[in-house]
Amino acid sequence: MVDAILDEAFIAHVGVTSAGAPVVPPMAYGRVDDVLYLHGATANHLLGEMKGHDACVTVTLVDGVVLARSAFHHSANYRSVVLFGVAELVHDDVGKRRALDAIVEQVTPGRSADARPANAAELRATAVLRFPIREGSAKTRSGGPIDDPEDVGLDIWAGHVPLRSMAGPAVPADDLPAGLGTPTYASDYRRPGTEG
Amino acid sequence: MVDAILDEAFIAHVGVTSAGAPVVPPMAYGRVDDVLYLHGATANHLLGEMKGHDACVTVTLVDGVVLARSAFHHSANYRSVVLFGVAELVHDDVGKRRALDAIVEQVTPGRSADARPANAAELRATAVLRFPIREGSAKTRSGGPIDDPEDVGLDIWAGHVPLRSMAGPAVPADDLPAGLGTPTYASDYRRPGTEG
Repeated sequence: MVDAILDEAFIAHVGVTSAGAPVVPPMAYGRVDDVLYLHGATANHLLGEMKGHDACVTVTLVDGVVLARSAFHHSANYRSVVLFGVAELVHDDVGKRRALDAIVEQVTPGRSADARPANAAELRATAVLRFPIREGSAKTRSGGPIDDPEDVGLDIWAGHVPLRSMAGPAVPADDLPAGLGTPTYASDYRRPGTEG
Repeated sequence: MVDAILDEAFIAHVGVTSAGAPVVPPMAYGRVDDVLYLHGATANHLLGEMKGHDACVTVTLVDGVVLARSAFHHSANYRSVVLFGVAELVHDDVGKRRALDAIVEQVTPGRSADARPANAAELRATAVLRFPIREGSAKTRSGGPIDDPEDVGLDIWAGHVPLRSMAGPAVPADDLPAGLGTPTYASDYRRPGTEG
């Protein structure tokens, strides 16, 4: 279940301690087997502070809102993964390239084979962290409200409203040369959980 | 801009330090003026650890994916708010009720007037935290890719794909008495940024 949730999203919220206090940047990621790859500018001080220290990586999919009769039992349908671990820098260029491909591929399945790969300068400018998918847990809620028995007869509507992510039509870049067709992964953008 | 972003979402990722390490649970919230309200079970130890200590509250809206010619310039369109501050418990019942209404209303605009309000036992079982919207910043990216000039002529499609949140048809609770009509806020669920 953890992997399935991770594969539906591409943005994680990464908790790091910086100057003694928690900081939670949103970050794109890519999953390969039991590793999440994160990346950023080599100069990014948060990535530097993350390296070698405890971090928490949380991925959340919001699937709907749950309207119970009682305010108390209102809820959301969701699937989330909270991972704990220590991120380490990826030093070798082969490993960095594989991680960056995984991130491009996580965001847009099918894209990594088409994009121009990083050149040497871009690779130097990019820091890649590997975070183990080892310690943590998934939590999910689905379905309708669960009210207290004495509330069920109340004259209050109850139920749930599903929410989902939808992709709109692809928008070509302003400077795209004429005649370059839109690839299917953009014209018919699909990820697990996102409808085109 | 900070308030507009906060008002489009209802789930925050809250960074707390627990036993010396960061923890990032997803939490529903409600905004009232310059305060974000968070809540949970009184017995929830994370809320207890958050109280009086530095925390980071991050809210992220993912608006699309950006496909540049170079893997390096791939990106996402998004709007995010990262807030820093110290959360404090709300002790008085009037303040707690107002906060809980705000959370119900943030998740489903229009619902708080209809739901059965918390009774005394439910109120005791619920801890409410107030987190100031004072220190922090918003970051956004929108629009198409920005490639290096030497990449623009490459034979690679570039552009962006918008993503948005869509509400599906409301699903009545299994135990809903016949004849109770679906309220508009559920049948035509709308939030800023979510289409019905």
